[in-house]
Formats: sequence, structure tokens, C-alpha cells
Amino acid sequence: PEVVDSRRKRSQLKKDMEWHLKMLLLPRRNVSPFSHSPAASYTDSSDDETSPRDKQQKNSKGSSDFCVKNIKQAEFGRREIEIAEQEMPALMALRKRAQGEKPLAGAKIVGCTHITAQTAVLMETLGALGAQCRWAACNIYSTLNEVAAALAESGFPVFAWKGESEDDFWWCIDRCVNVEGWQPNMILDDGGDLTHWIYKKYPNMFKKIKGIVEESVTGVHRLYQLSKAGKLCVPAMNVNDSVTKQKFDNLYCCRESILDGLKRTTDMMFGGKQVVVCGYGEVGKGCCAALKAMGSIVYVTEIDPICALQACMDGFRLVKLNEVIRQVDIVITCTGNKNVVTREHLDRMKNSCIVCNMGHSNTEIDVASLRTPELTWERVRSQVDHVIWPDGKRIVLLAEGRLLNLSCSTVPTFVLSITATTQALALIELYNAPEGRYKQDVYLLPKKMGKGIPSPWPYARPQESSLPFPCCSQWTPL
Amino acid sequence: PEVVDSRRKRSQLKKDMEWHLKMLLLPRRNVSPFSHSPAASYTDSSDDETSPRDKQQKNSKGSSDFCVKNIKQAEFGRREIEIAEQEMPALMALRKRAQGEKPLAGAKIVGCTHITAQTAVLMETLGALGAQCRWAACNIYSTLNEVAAALAESGFPVFAWKGESEDDFWWCIDRCVNVEGWQPNMILDDGGDLTHWIYKKYPNMFKKIKGIVEESVTGVHRLYQLSKAGKLCVPAMNVNDSVTKQKFDNLYCCRESILDGLKRTTDMMFGGKQVVVCGYGEVGKGCCAALKAMGSIVYVTEIDPICALQACMDGFRLVKLNEVIRQVDIVITCTGNKNVVTREHLDRMKNSCIVCNMGHSNTEIDVASLRTPELTWERVRSQVDHVIWPDGKRIVLLAEGRLLNLSCSTVPTFVLSITATTQALALIELYNAPEGRYKQDVYLLPKKMGKGIPSPWPYARPQESSLPFPCCSQWTPL
Amino acid sequence: PEVVDSRRKRSQLKKDMEWHLKMLLLPRRNVSPFSHSPAASYTDSSDDETSPRDKQQKNSKGSSDFCVKNIKQAEFGRREIEIAEQEMPALMALRKRAQGEKPLAGAKIVGCTHITAQTAVLMETLGALGAQCRWAACNIYSTLNEVAAALAESGFPVFAWKGESEDDFWWCIDRCVNVEGWQPNMILDDGGDLTHWIYKKYPNMFKKIKGIVEESVTGVHRLYQLSKAGKLCVPAMNVNDSVTKQKFDNLYCCRESILDGLKRTTDMMFGGKQVVVCGYGEVGKGCCAALKAMGSIVYVTEIDPICALQACMDGFRLVKLNEVIRQVDIVITCTGNKNVVTREHLDRMKNSCIVCNMGHSNTEIDVASLRTPELTWERVRSQVDHVIWPDGKRIVLLAEGRLLNLSCSTVPTFVLSITATTQALALIELYNAPEGRYKQDVYLLPKKMGKGIPSPWPYARPQESSLPFPCCSQWTPL
Amino acid sequence: PEVVDSRRKRSQLKKDMEWHLKMLLLPRRNVSPFSHSPAASYTDSSDDETSPRDKQQKNSKGSSDFCVKNIKQAEFGRREIEIAEQEMPALMALRKRAQGEKPLAGAKIVGCTHITAQTAVLMETLGALGAQCRWAACNIYSTLNEVAAALAESGFPVFAWKGESEDDFWWCIDRCVNVEGWQPNMILDDGGDLTHWIYKKYPNMFKKIKGIVEESVTGVHRLYQLSKAGKLCVPAMNVNDSVTKQKFDNLYCCRESILDGLKRTTDMMFGGKQVVVCGYGEVGKGCCAALKAMGSIVYVTEIDPICALQACMDGFRLVKLNEVIRQVDIVITCTGNKNVVTREHLDRMKNSCIVCNMGHSNTEIDVASLRTPELTWERVRSQVDHVIWPDGKRIVLLAEGRLLNLSCSTVPTFVLSITATTQALALIELYNAPEGRYKQDVYLLPKKMGKGIPSPWPYARPQESSLPFPCCSQWTPL
Repeated sequence: PEVVDSRRKRSQLKKDMEWHLKMLLLPRRNVSPFSHSPAASYTDSSDDETSPRDKQQKNSKGSSDFCVKNIKQAEFGRREIEIAEQEMPALMALRKRAQGEKPLAGAKIVGCTHITAQTAVLMETLGALGAQCRWAACNIYSTLNEVAAALAESGFPVFAWKGESEDDFWWCIDRCVNVEGWQPNMILDDGGDLTHWIYKKYPNMFKKIKGIVEESVTGVHRLYQLSKAGKLCVPAMNVNDSVTKQKFDNLYCCRESILDGLKRTTDMMFGGKQVVVCGYGEVGKGCCAALKAMGSIVYVTEIDPICALQACMDGFRLVKLNEVIRQVDIVITCTGNKNVVTREHLDRMKNSCIVCNMGHSNTEIDVASLRTPELTWERVRSQVDHVIWPDGKRIVLLAEGRLLNLSCSTVPTFVLSITATTQALALIELYNAPEGRYKQDVYLLPKKMGKGIPSPWPYARPQESSLPFPCCSQWTPL
Repeated sequence: PEVVDSRRKRSQLKKDMEWHLKMLLLPRRNVSPFSHSPAASYTDSSDDETSPRDKQQKNSKGSSDFCVKNIKQAEFGRREIEIAEQEMPALMALRKRAQGEKPLAGAKIVGCTHITAQTAVLMETLGALGAQCRWAACNIYSTLNEVAAALAESGFPVFAWKGESEDDFWWCIDRCVNVEGWQPNMILDDGGDLTHWIYKKYPNMFKKIKGIVEESVTGVHRLYQLSKAGKLCVPAMNVNDSVTKQKFDNLYCCRESILDGLKRTTDMMFGGKQVVVCGYGEVGKGCCAALKAMGSIVYVTEIDPICALQACMDGFRLVKLNEVIRQVDIVITCTGNKNVVTREHLDRMKNSCIVCNMGHSNTEIDVASLRTPELTWERVRSQVDHVIWPDGKRIVLLAEGRLLNLSCSTVPTFVLSITATTQALALIELYNAPEGRYKQDVYLLPKKMGKGIPSPWPYARPQESSLPFPCCSQWTPL
Repeated sequence: PEVVDSRRKRSQLKKDMEWHLKMLLLPRRNVSPFSHSPAASYTDSSDDETSPRDKQQKNSKGSSDFCVKNIKQAEFGRREIEIAEQEMPALMALRKRAQGEKPLAGAKIVGCTHITAQTAVLMETLGALGAQCRWAACNIYSTLNEVAAALAESGFPVFAWKGESEDDFWWCIDRCVNVEGWQPNMILDDGGDLTHWIYKKYPNMFKKIKGIVEESVTGVHRLYQLSKAGKLCVPAMNVNDSVTKQKFDNLYCCRESILDGLKRTTDMMFGGKQVVVCGYGEVGKGCCAALKAMGSIVYVTEIDPICALQACMDGFRLVKLNEVIRQVDIVITCTGNKNVVTREHLDRMKNSCIVCNMGHSNTEIDVASLRTPELTWERVRSQVDHVIWPDGKRIVLLAEGRLLNLSCSTVPTFVLSITATTQALALIELYNAPEGRYKQDVYLLPKKMGKGIPSPWPYARPQESSLPFPCCSQWTPL
Repeated sequence: PEVVDSRRKRSQLKKDMEWHLKMLLLPRRNVSPFSHSPAASYTDSSDDETSPRDKQQKNSKGSSDFCVKNIKQAEFGRREIEIAEQEMPALMALRKRAQGEKPLAGAKIVGCTHITAQTAVLMETLGALGAQCRWAACNIYSTLNEVAAALAESGFPVFAWKGESEDDFWWCIDRCVNVEGWQPNMILDDGGDLTHWIYKKYPNMFKKIKGIVEESVTGVHRLYQLSKAGKLCVPAMNVNDSVTKQKFDNLYCCRESILDGLKRTTDMMFGGKQVVVCGYGEVGKGCCAALKAMGSIVYVTEIDPICALQACMDGFRLVKLNEVIRQVDIVITCTGNKNVVTREHLDRMKNSCIVCNMGHSNTEIDVASLRTPELTWERVRSQVDHVIWPDGKRIVLLAEGRLLNLSCSTVPTFVLSITATTQALALIELYNAPEGRYKQDVYLLPKKMGKGIPSPWPYARPQESSLPFPCCSQWTPL
């Protein structure tokens, strides 16, 4: 699931924009306590075309140290934030436990992430822990304007709106960083743009940063490159590869989103269907478990010997794709490789076979090979194309081979809450670590953190108890 | 799932209309090969306000023995029918096997059902088997105009459109029955209105009917009443209570629709959530199995001793609702009883608890008790209300307590195909049964049918083989 | 699972004896709180060869109205009974609830069943409910002498020992029935021998019986024949076909015993193995569910259309046996038919394939076809034979094709407790039913029983509660 | 599961002997194609008391370079080896693939492992790959004499018998190492005794060894100590921590052995039982999955935050042990910690609660605390004790708190085959690695091995195929 992170690589920008635009057109709901719907914005039909940069806005306390679409939407955003809080128990528990001790007192955090209700809960938690924050968006489309307004209203200097230009994008980042009399000492980044900006434009400021917390594949990759080149003069935490994030983003999330994505697009029945899942990593494991539970007969292809063995011991029939391609009703890719499903496979599929991708970017299915004159494409609904062979056979291609879980499903707030908690803990750990514990390198969050850190891990128990700390509603006190 | 069947009880009509209207407003997709979306109609934005009864239309062969919204939509409808055929393998197999022998040659079937792509596949199968058919809609809202047009175009006398008045409704039925030189000998009914009409208006015609096939609870109930009163002079088949229909409409369908309905409305994550399912009948079994597989912790309440024992042996903790009401994240009713979830329960639920009904009509949750001044209702999206207590606690009520699976999910074509196949077989059986096998009574479809009947049961195997007849794609020949 | 019931058909007697003898040789444990081990008897190595009929024994209260192997073993038997009580919660609850009201006061029950710790718990419950009982064994081998002694010691007239001759068998029955000054008014039978004896020898006594409760297939069959012939002058309850008994004896019991039987005999690993299960009735469903859960890949053969459909919707690949016979590691029969696995199938199995029967008697696998000169049989351990083909291929045949679950596994006490509770309730119901409710026919136990019956159903809840009555440890009060 | 590995620590030796002796008394079967039963030896009742060291034996080719109990038992052993081959597909495939190239040509391997049929398959595979082998037993009790005889008969210099004295033990090892004109260049060890012997006694030989492959926890620990101390002058492979071994020894093996161990000892029914599993590592995951599948209601205690989260997302209720100790039917420990179940817990358990240990050694349950005067112990069968409280409450303690899976279940051949294959690959890799790839350190087997190595991994596919290499019977060619 790196698509989002690679979004600012120049060469891919156009393509990604296209994709995002399509995503915007999906019929989405307004407000959900349970999910992150980046494109949703229920008061967005505002015909206000003025750029936020050209507006004069003040929040109710008189501050104008922010730049959002419309400060008047704050109330709507506040409600969304309150709703999101209910599905982020670990973060709320951290807020409660830690605020007495203010472990981030003195921290000046500059952040660059998607601006959503879930991010707002994170920011307000950081604030409660003692930090000062300034924030920009890491994506020009994904800001929820109402949430940005709510944050601005409660005093957070937020610089973000939906539909920024590229120039706006960098302007916003700069407004977070380049402030009279305020110098950040911590970075929370998602994609590496903020880090890059400070590194390039404000090298002296960069040297004084105490720590960087980075979430995305792309950003982490950049950090490792810096580190390799000997230019990373700041310790950094790689949140992306933490066990919790990996399990949630892949296994637990996909176990649910494969069903959701297939149902929303095709309304098919799973029971009795034959399915082949290509790849038995965490994503594949989630897909297989879900479909098996719904009564599908699931085959697995896998080349990694250990994953293959796991598939086998989990009761799935291991096959070559060719062996079953003629008989299956659904083909799902989650290998991380390219062209796992080729035109030859597509030619041999049976009528009305469904093909979709849960794995990497949009490369697993060779969709390009289907753009030939003898095949007819029919868009039957959003995200669903019928590709029709001369003899009338149709295959049902979902999301044009892009990620089904991102295109046709939603990411639950609870999943996002795991990442947000890990980010908060990484900030606490880096900010409080004694001199010398972390060198100028990229680290994973340790299981046990420094003494005196209020909550050493999102789900850790207090020493005296055998019960894990609230990680989900199971432990919500009655 | 009787809601649909009770639709014509005068007293409920208003309420149901309201409900149907709301259902129409759900964002639906255009065409799906896999589901029945009664409200979908992608060319419906026609501004043509003329009543079909006032139009002069001819199909391409010159016939005008039909009455539909717009014969020109036939092509769109044809495509939907073709797509539906792909998820109705048993019916298509029956069509193939049986057409050589024309077991319905001479049958004159008058039908009254929802007019959908799935019905069209049934009608064209009946035609292929030798029958002549005339058809009306059993519901004033549910007709897919394009499908009706496609049927009319290929020569079926169809009298149905979306948005009939009650007068239209009976006019359409009468046009099917009251034809110069054509007298029906078989009835296929869904709700009992057609049967009632013939019984009342054309008693002589009624006596000559060879058999009635009825699908709905309401219609079956009426037949039993007639039979009890000694007025049923025709053998009838109760399709509603066939094992296959019961299993599919309840266990298999709900196993999928509970997840779908919850996801589409709330986008919540299932993993780690605590759920109480009230009732462990077929519907409850489906809900429990699905949620358990998604990693929820599921509690069951049940008063029937045998179902309770099954829940217990299936690994679910049996509880009283009161014991767990404070701790659960989701409450699902599927008991078939009234007021299973009371105001007192609702008062005790925790913040952001989700409450929904998968059971009977809209009676299981005492929604009326929530319409009191101290509680605030907030509609947060279609089918989702937040009910807010004075202290700020919210519960999330789905579909206002109506059936989640009908309101917020779809019925897969495959499920409908099971019923349609059973209907076809019932017609074949009754039409071909030797004199005296069936008396003037209501019957269930026998497992073994009369000799000479081409396919004795939708899934039966040929004598010489140990492989069941195609009941789903598993057996579709490659 | 009718093998036991057919045991007294003359033609089969020899064969069955052989089988029972072999069963006796299985290494069994002494005492288990959780299972019925008919052959276990830890003090049996007594060299006392005197027939119990020739002994003079008295219990500690001076009574000699019994005939058991050795009254001195009573203490050992008492311990077994106490242990069994712990896994029979429903019966113990019935005992507790009902004893105040003595619903069996005045009942004179003559019984003929296996004499085990579980039966003893039943008998003592009947006694607590007010009944007088006299008891004989329904099988010449299965009596646990210590338990018989314990019952005799506490005052029950028991006539049974392990290793009765056929003459002993009928003598014991007669001693129960033919008593000076005591005339039975209820019969509890398992196999129909007791009923037959009274019917033939004491026709006047038979007419005065208020009710018969029969557990076995054979016994029920005999009752239906009597009824058909117009000779059944007493209402009878068919316990064998009660839903609870069917579910427990088949689905729930086999779900566990298939794993247990295979492990104890072969110690094989289930994960990753390919298995074909022939038949998807209750037994097949249990086997499939268990093996799937252990990571086996399971195929199903089935000819009944509805069961086939269930297999399909439960996610099992439906096949013809021929299609998979070459590739599977295990073949399990549970069809109830004859020669499901033929010599031809056996010839085609791969080396070291395991073949076993969970279904009916010993007819499903054509074992006779393996007794040909070119095949070598090797007994590798108790209940396990290797049959070796000329080319060295071996198949592993378990229990010579007899029932794996009876031969190589045990029946948990909890399963037996279900039947025993049903028997007790049937006796209560028949004894208390108002004149005329039950005619001279064979009945199933009704879900709701007569008013005034203390506990209307083993798992029924009191009217005022939504919690089921204790059916297993879940509800045992802490 | 380290018990076996710690066996030669002087301080534990007595205790372990006791344990092994008890294990010998378990009723075991003779030969199984599917499991490793270390104590089984069907011709052992030989009254031959002469020490093998004092015997003069020759195999049929005239060699006497071996020392086994009785060379005449070779035929029986050969059969066991042939049977084991059938459950070791990966090793057999390796043998087939690799023998053309003889990747171990020139290797002189000295080995010290359990001498079982499974080891024999490994040794004969190493021979087929070109190696010369000499072998001793790593345990004084576990040798299967027949297998040792079969190996000796086919020309392997084997020095091992069941019931060696400690002096014998070292004598056997020395006879493998100290040979005129033959010097080992590879070590395959299980426990580190062989390595230690060579290191201490033959330091010059030690320096010339090309590689050590070690399987056990103890042996690996010793290697790391050597390495730390700078004294390990040979590269070593740690097989114990390979992913495949870990998964099989823990997750997959325990998923089956928990059920097997409980059934064999108690014959209890799992359905509907309440179980608490302490610890959700690989062993706990296996136990939970199995019991959930059998219809138990499973609670989990866990202090590791990530494992706790996994339990939660897998649908298990996380609890403190105290919360549920009064209500559960079974308590299973698999934490790896000490005194997880204390006397206080034991005091609060309900009557007939079962307590057992699947985790570490015999420390998890505080069994010592039960040896107090007021409690009565009753041995009810082998490996099953009832501990009885003054008020009559009994708890059922299995295997006196030692490992249930080792004491009361068996280890399937397939599980052992995974380890054996990994050992073979490790030998191939170390023997063929170019100079300098492996330093004087302890390594894990790499996923990709050196070019030219015939089969780089037990389950790896050839480059050109998407099908994994045979890892189990699924891929056995028909």
C-alpha cells in the first residue's frame, strides 16, 4: 500500500492526480465515526472560489495564525473530531495518562500529514501532552476543510485546504516552519516533503531538530538514503515498519476490506465461489481468511517457501495460477510484484470472472494489455469495468487494477488510530531519550521505552497488572 | 424477511411506501451482474410523464400486447438480463436440459412477481420449456422499466412499470388474465394478489387452473386460509418454505449481508469488537458466523433451548442481554419477536454503540421509545441516525430499526436464482403430475419429482453420477 | 451409529460379539470423568469365576434384591458415578429442580440399558424424582461391574454383570419384571428387548404400562412395526430421533471424535493434508468442520441436493470420489450407504492413504474386496492394518472399516448426558400426561410439555428469564 | 519446548530421567508411519542383557564398524524407515533432486541426534547426496534399536542403543570421532555434546571442521557462548531458530497436540467448554485456534502488547486470569514464564477444572504448592491426577504440570521432517559456501542459498515455475 506515499514523485504526479480525482467522484458519505473518507466534505459545495491565501480570517480568539478554507466550518469539523475520538481509544488513553506529566512540554512539533479528523485527534493529544504544533497537509486533495477549520478555531496554526496548487503546497509547509520567534525541534512527517524542505531550505534549523517521525514508505526510503549518504544529522523513527502498523494496515484491514470492496462494487455472493488469491503475505492471509469464512473455496499461489508452507498448513490448496485460471470466479492479486495476471491469463478466464488487486500500486494486473482494439470496455458502474472479448466473454475488472481496498472500500478509524498512537509514542520517545541513546540513524520504535515515559507502548500494561492497556473497546471502562 | 410480502395490507401501505421511497434514495449503482437492486434504473431520469396506459407502443415485431414504460429501453434491459444469466447457473442448466423435452408445452402461465432481470431469466426459461406467459408486477415500485421493455420486445406480454398507481396495479393484473382466446392454466404468484383476483373475478377460470406456485409468506398464508375454508379447488406449491429458499434467504444471505450492511453504513472495523446477537435461528447463525470470522467477540441471547444449545456448542457465550448491554459495541436483533431491545437497554448502552435489526420487520427494537423530548436525533447519513442522550452519549441506530439487510445491503442474484429455480420446478411438477397426485391442498416441493420430469430438482444429479447437478459456478463446465 | 442397536439380531450376533471382543482389547483407561468406556473395569482381573447367579450377596442394608458381580466393588463404582455427575449438568439440574415436586412419585420404572456411570446418574435422578426402579443390562458385555455394585449398594435392584450368557441376559430381564407385589408402569428400553419380553411373556402387564421410552434405532423400529400391526397398546416416546440426541451423537460428537480417532490410531498431522469426506449429513458436517479447522484441504462427495448445496456454501469443493481418489491422503466415509469405497477406488489410492469409516456399521468400505491373495495384510497396531499391494503400495485401513468413532475414540459423558436427560424428561412427560394426550402410538418428545411438569425441557429457561437453563458448564452456578 | 535440550545439564539429569521413565510407561503403539514415538520398540522385550559394547556383531556385508543392540533387528527397522519416508516428502524430494549432483561429495559428517526412523531418513539422504556419515545418539533413552540396526546393516557406522549408561554415551560419541584414517569435516549436533567433545578432546580436528549444524536450544546457547568468548573457530548454523522449525514445533504442532493431549488424558468434550489460555505466542495461538474450532469459548491472558492485540483482533476476549478463574473448565499455560498459575488460582478454580501446561518445562503451574497435607492426590490414570480439596472439590492436573504435548501426545513425523530437511540444507549450504561467506559465527539458514546448490530451500520453487517445491503431500506427483 505505498501508492499514497509515492504521490509526490514528479514522474508519477499526473497519474496520481488522475487517480485521486477519480476517487473524489466515488459516492462517499458525509460523516462517519468509524472511517477516514479523504474526499468527504459535506459543506464543500461552497461556491467560494477565493484562494484561502487571499482571505483574511480570524478565529474566535482573534488569532489569524492559520490558513484554512473557511473558519466558519469549525463546528462541523469539531463534531467529526469528537466522533473520531470514540474509535481511537489508545490515543485517548494516552492523552489521559500522560497529560499530568506533560512529557512533550517544550516540544515544538511541525507536522505534515493528511488533515483528517483522525489527525486532529492526534494533534490535540500532542497538545495535551505539552507540545506546541504547527501543521500542513501532505496531500493537496485530502484535507477535510471542516476539520482544518476546527483545529484553527481551537488555536492550532494549520495551513491546509482541499485543492491546493503545488505552489500552495510548499507555501503552506513554509508557513509552518518559517515563523518569527518559533523554531521547531521535532518533525512529524508523512512522505518526507516537510523533512526535505527543512533539510534543503533551513539546514541550520535541521541540525537542531531532536527527532523525526516518519510514517510513509517513501519518506522512510528518503531517510535511509540520507543516512547512507551520511547527511542525516538527526535521529529518525520509522513508524511505517512497526509491527502494529504492518499488521493493521495489511492483515486486519484487508481481512475486512476485501469483502467490503467486492460487495460494494459487485454485490456478488461469496458462498460457494471459487477464488484464487495470488500471494500469501499479510494481505493475502487477510483476504484468504475472510473469503474462506464466507464459504468461498480459496486457492493460493505463492513463491516464497515459508509463506507457501503457511498457506498449506492453513488449509489452502497451493496451485499455479494456470491450473485454476479457467475455473475460478474471482482473481485477487496481493504479491507486490508486477504483471502477476497477464493477458494470457485474462484470455483464459471464464465468463464474468472478477479480477482485482489488493497488493501493490496498479502493477499486478497487466491492465495495459487489455487496451487492444478487439476488446470492448464497458464502464458499468463507478470502479467497475466489463472487458468484453469478441466471443462475448466478459471479465469484470475492478478499479482498473488499482488497489481495491483504497479505491472501493474505506480505512476504518481504528486502523488509523493504531498509526497515530505509534506516531505519538515515537515523538515522546525521541523527545525524552537521554543524550546518545539515538544516533543519527533511522530506528524502529522499541518495545520498551525510556524510563519515565508515561505510557511505554500503546497497549502495554501497567507493571502490576496482567491486563493489557486499552487497545480497543474491549477494555473501555464501563 | 416478510416486509415485502405484507406490503399490500392496507394498514401498512403508507408506512411501506415511505420505506420504499427512502430505499429509492439510497445511492445505488446502475447495473450489477450479481444483485437485485429494485430501485435502480439508469435511464429513469426520463421526463416522460405520460402514463404507459395512455401510450401506443409496438415492439419491433409489431406486437402491442404489452404495457411498459418505454419499449425503446429494451436494449439496456437485455444487457441486464444477460448479465443476470451468469449468476443463475441452475436455471440456465434447467433451460438447457429441459428444453428438448418441452415439459411445459401447453402451459399457459400467468405471473405476478417483481419485474427484475432475475425474473426475466425465469420467464425466458419457462418460455424455453414450452410455456406461454403473461406477466404483471407484484409491487408498484419495484419494476425495472428496461427489463420490462426487453421482455416486451422479445414477445412477452408484460404489463408493469415503476410507479404504478393502485388502480394501475389491478389493471395490469387484469390485462394478464382477461384475454380474448387465451386462458391461463397455471399461476405463479408472489403475494397472492393475482390468485385473489382470479379467485374473486373469474371463479370459472380459477377452477380450471392446474396449479398455483406461491413464493411469499403472505400469499402462502392466504392459500392455507382458503384451503382451511375448503375453497381452494386447485393444488398449490408453497415455495416459501422450501429448505433451499429458507437456507439462502436466511443463513447464507445474512452471513454476508450483516457485514455488508454494517460496513456500508458505519465503515467500522469488526476485529476486536464485542457484539451481542439476539436470537440464534438461521439469521442469527449467519450473523454470528460472519462476525466471529472477522475477529469480533460474539455473545448470543436465545430462549429456544435447542438453538441455545447450538450456540453453545458453536462456541458462543450465551448471556442475558442485560449482562452484556453495557459493554458491547454492536447489538443485532434477529429473534422474530417484538421489543427485544427496550428503552431500558438503550439507556444502558455505552457511547457510540451500534444498534440494528436483521430479524423481523421493524418491531424488534423499540424505536418508538426513543422519540422522546430529552433525546436528540441526528441523521448523519442515509440510514444512519445518532440518538443523543442529555449527557452526550450517542447510540448509532441503523435503518431506524428496519431490516438492515434489506435497507442497507443488497440481495445477491445467486440467492434470487435459488428461488427462481424452485419456482420453475414447482411449475413443471404441478403441470406434469398425474391426475390425483396433488389434491386441492398446499404442498411443499418434493425432493423426488414425477418420472419423466427432466430435472427433478435444481441440484439433483443424474442417476449415474455422484456429482450434484450444477447449483453454482463450481460445476459450470469449463 | 446403529451398530450397537442391531446387536441382538440373531444373524448378526456372532459378528458383533467378535467386534465387541476386539473392542475390549483396546488399551483403555480406568476412570474418566468425561467419557463412557464400556469395557473399562479396573478391578476386573478378579479370578472369581463363580456366576453371580450362584452367589449370595447382601448390601450393607441387608437387601439381596439384586444380582451383580461383586457388591464389594461398590465404593469404586460410587466414585465413578460422582465423577460422571460433574459432566451431566442438565440431569443434575433436573434432579435439583424437580425433586421437591416428585413428578415421578408412584412411577415404577423397569429399565434395560447399558449399565455405566452415566446410567447410574440417570437412575439416581429418577429415584430422586420419586420413581422406583428395577434395572437390567441391554448388552452382555457392557456392564461396569463396579457401577452395578454401587447401585445395588444404594438400594437399586440391579441385575447385570459383564460377560453374561444369553441365558443370563433374559434371566436378568425377567428378574426385573417378574416380582412379587411390584408391577412396573413405565418402561425405559434401549434395543427393545425388555419391551419385547414383557409384550410376549406378560401381555396383561404390558397393557397396564403407562408409557415406553425407547432410545435405539432398533427398538424404535420395532415399536413402529408393533404400532403398524395395531398391537402397540401403550404410548411410546422415540428418544432416538430427538433433535438434541441427533445433533450430539452426530454433529458435535463426530466433530471431535474424527480427530481423536485418527490421532490415536495414526498420530498423523492434519495440517496440509488432503481429505475427501463422503457424505455431508450431520456426521460429514462434523468431520469436515474439524479437519478444515486443523488446516486440512477437504473435498466432499454428496448426492443429496440439499446437503450438496450446504457443502458448497460452507466452502467445500464438491467432487466425485474418482476425481480426487489419486491425490488424497485420507478417505472418510459417512454416507450411510453400502460400498461407497470400492476395490477400484482402493486400487487407485496413493501410497499410505488412510481409509476409515464414520458412517454406518461396517458396510461403507468394501473391505471384503481386500481379502484377496495378491494383497498382504499387516496389523501394525490395534485397529490399524496396512494392506499392501504387489508393487509395495500400502493403504492404512482403520478398524477394518468399522466405525472409527466407536472403535478408536470414546463417547464423552457430556454427549451421553444429553440422551439421559431426554430419557428422564420423556418418562416425566408420559407419566404425567393427562388421559388422552398420547394415544397408542410412537411420539417424539414435544418442545413444550404438560403444565405442572417441573422442568419442561433440559435446556428450557424459566418463564421469567431470557437465560437458558443449564445445558453445560457455562451456566453452572459459581 | 526446551525440555529435551536441557537434558544433560547435570543438575537436571535425575529429574529428566524420571520423566523419561514415566514417558516410557505410557501405552504406546508399535510402529507409526506418522509419528515419532521415542520409547517404542516392539522387540525390546528381549531378555538379552549383554552390553552391546561386549558383543561381536557383523552386518551382512561383513562390516563390524558399528555398535547397536542387535543387528538382527535390521529388517524391522528398515520397515519403519520406509514408512517414515512417506511422511517426509521434502527430504525425499531433496534426495531425488540433489543426488545427481552430489553436493555433499567429500563431506564427512559426524552426527549426534536421536536415533529414530526420521533420523535414518535424514542420514540416508545425506548419504545419497555424497556424504560419509558416522552417528551417535544424543540421548541415552531415545534410540530405536531396530532403526539403529537397519542403519548399521546398510553400512552406516552407528553407535547407539536404548539404555546407554553415561559412560556408554561418551564412548559412542568418541567411536564416531576418533577413527583411524577418517576425519570429520562437518558436525550435525543436537544438544552440543558432540561439539563440546570434539572441541575439548580434539582441538586440532575442531579447527578443520567446515561447519556445525545445531538444532537444540541448549546447543545453540553453547555456540553463542563460544562465539562470545572468541573460541568458535568454525561457522555454525542455528537450525533451532529457523522460521519453519519455530512455526512447526509451536503453532502447527500445538494446534493439534492440545486437542490430542486433552482427549487422550480426559476424553472430555470440547464443545461449549470455557477455556482460558495463558499466553498468546505461537503455542497459545495454536491452542486457541484449535479449541475455538471445536466450539470452546476461549479467553486469553497476555502481557505482551503486540500479542495481546493479535488475540484481540483474532476474536478472543482478553482477561486477567483472576477474572475468569472461577468459571472456566480448562486452564492452559503457554507463557514461558514461571508460576503463571498459582496456588491461589488453584484454590479458586471450580470443581473438576482441568489444568495443564503447553509452555515451558514444568514451571508454569506452581505444582509444588499443591503438595500440602490438606490436599489429597489421586492418580486416576497415567498422566492424570485428581487433586482434592477438603470440601471435596477436585482439580484435574495433567502430566503433573509438565509439557502436555510431550507427555500425553506424539510429535508427527511431518513436523520432524521439517527440521530434518532444514538440517540437510544447512549442511549443504555450509559445505558448499565459498570461502569467506560464513565467518566464525552462528548463522541462521539464509532464504536464498549459494549458486549451484541444488535445492536452495526445502520448499523453494525452480526459477521458472510459480509452484512451490513439494513441502507436503499436496504436491506429491500422482
